[in-house]
Amino acid sequence: MKAIEWRDNRLIILDQTLLPLEEKYLELNDYHAVAEAIKTLRVRGAPSIGVAAAYGIALGALGIETQYCSEFLPLYQQVSAEIASTRPTAKNLFMAAERMDHVVASGTDVSQVKISLVEEAVKIHHEEEEASRKISAFGAELIQPGWTVLTHCNAGPLATAGYGTALGVIIAAHQQGKNISAFATETRPLLQGARLTALELKEAGIPFKLITDSMAGHFMQKGVINAVVVGADRIAKNGDTANKIGTYSLAVLALAHGIPFYVAAPSSTFDKSIESGRDIVIEERKPEEITQIRGQRIAPENIAVANPAFDVTPANLITAFITENGIIQREAKN
Amino acid sequence: MKAIEWRDNRLIILDQTLLPLEEKYLELNDYHAVAEAIKTLRVRGAPSIGVAAAYGIALGALGIETQYCSEFLPLYQQVSAEIASTRPTAKNLFMAAERMDHVVASGTDVSQVKISLVEEAVKIHHEEEEASRKISAFGAELIQPGWTVLTHCNAGPLATAGYGTALGVIIAAHQQGKNISAFATETRPLLQGARLTALELKEAGIPFKLITDSMAGHFMQKGVINAVVVGADRIAKNGDTANKIGTYSLAVLALAHGIPFYVAAPSSTFDKSIESGRDIVIEERKPEEITQIRGQRIAPENIAVANPAFDVTPANLITAFITENGIIQREAKN
Repeated sequence: MKAIEWRDNRLIILDQTLLPLEEKYLELNDYHAVAEAIKTLRVRGAPSIGVAAAYGIALGALGIETQYCSEFLPLYQQVSAEIASTRPTAKNLFMAAERMDHVVASGTDVSQVKISLVEEAVKIHHEEEEASRKISAFGAELIQPGWTVLTHCNAGPLATAGYGTALGVIIAAHQQGKNISAFATETRPLLQGARLTALELKEAGIPFKLITDSMAGHFMQKGVINAVVVGADRIAKNGDTANKIGTYSLAVLALAHGIPFYVAAPSSTFDKSIESGRDIVIEERKPEEITQIRGQRIAPENIAVANPAFDVTPANLITAFITENGIIQREAKN
Repeated sequence: MKAIEWRDNRLIILDQTLLPLEEKYLELNDYHAVAEAIKTLRVRGAPSIGVAAAYGIALGALGIETQYCSEFLPLYQQVSAEIASTRPTAKNLFMAAERMDHVVASGTDVSQVKISLVEEAVKIHHEEEEASRKISAFGAELIQPGWTVLTHCNAGPLATAGYGTALGVIIAAHQQGKNISAFATETRPLLQGARLTALELKEAGIPFKLITDSMAGHFMQKGVINAVVVGADRIAKNGDTANKIGTYSLAVLALAHGIPFYVAAPSSTFDKSIESGRDIVIEERKPEEITQIRGQRIAPENIAVANPAFDVTPANLITAFITENGIIQREAKN
């Protein structure tokens, strides 16, 4: 099960919206299809979004049929802009687009630029794979033998086009024989925990329980959760962290129960251009994600709904960040 | 839309599992059918469970074809035991069964006992209706003009066979022209918030937003929620309160944000026989409620699931109890 693969100048993605019921791979030959796949969460998770975006831009560039820079550039800009506008929160998306734009800006020959763009996308992919492997190894050191670790949403191999960040930490600790177990929150509205994390935990052979998002506090109160590890979509300069809606509640609950709360993310998720969480744009997704589940209506018609896809956890609720460069401990947890 | 009605010695209930898609009334002529309706949540909400249980016991008693006390009593005990064993947490269920048993214990003539049982059930129903009306009126005094109030699960007319407890407070404040609005959490796994509270808020004409359970903390952080009001399934002598899973998390979040957290419940929900929440039995319901939504699978097969239907909120997180006898303020909120 590979989330993203680049093969003969085509992008192959696993359609994550169909999991766990169906394992279907899509062959994307066209950057519009990549944009659609990112928007509709066929490919999701901040690092995976970044990787898919880079390949999508490469695909778009390869499709521009001209040798002239003057013709290539405006068409390339359309490609890059369409891919970058698919989702507003994940930093990795903008990081990837910026790196691809930089390749174009420093190129002179259109044919060579196209080759360099593909190379850059492959490089981003390899860097994310490598980063997730290091994050998992560093993070596993924080997990004590016998612990039960709660994770939210999905930050495993599917989300990272690699080894996983938050879930990678859990998988690495398990593979080190630490005899750990896990709780996975289902993660409404789109159920990435129930659909994807449960699948990845099951495949890794880690004992775990699936719970609704509303049960996390109850199990913390019962004393059965030793740590929380989550991924991130964007981290501001001061450490405020945007991640899947519900993360903030888990951080408040973890603090109230004296449970360490870890954020695992590659440096591509850190956004040095924004001071704090106040500057992070939170994506509001369509109401049907709340009023329907897999096409089936669960609420009355014509009602108002709020559907923020992310929330912001203030830095002072985060015990430590786990990055590919090591653990960044908060000085003091208020 | 009436949750429970007693008509010509038959019990008519609205099948709440089909809402909001279908408004279907079931005519129950047999106490086994009442037990099944309680177990499967066709009728739910602590006060409604108590009322349905009383009518169910009356129905069972009416069906016992004997004039001899010696024959009537053991058959009656079977009826009462079956109804009382349907669900383990709601105090109101046991309160109702105890009151019905007391009628039988103090009777001498079987025909007269049957009449008295029906009268007692009707009395319990009227008392709950009256209690919910008073709770709503007392509670509305706590709600300031312009407030936005969050409620969890469903504690409205459907849940109370009356005016509503937590939702009754919101409806009463609205009817007093206080210009309030509401947030309703969807309340996984069984979506009573999305299905029932959303319906009742819509019918009452109260502006509201439906959110997933995981969003409550985010909107508290944004400062848009002024109070939380929930119902209760059982309240111990020390004030520890069992209510729908997720309530405890909301109470911790409310405290962290300085938001008052109110529990609205009739005295039939208070259990003087238990000292604290440690003694409250929490119902564990079947895994399919988590792994499926309305019959559709959302998780991998053969995984472990936890499905506690309730959690216990410690008394020190509760700002005040709203009962039919007035407001019981906690002395100090730790």
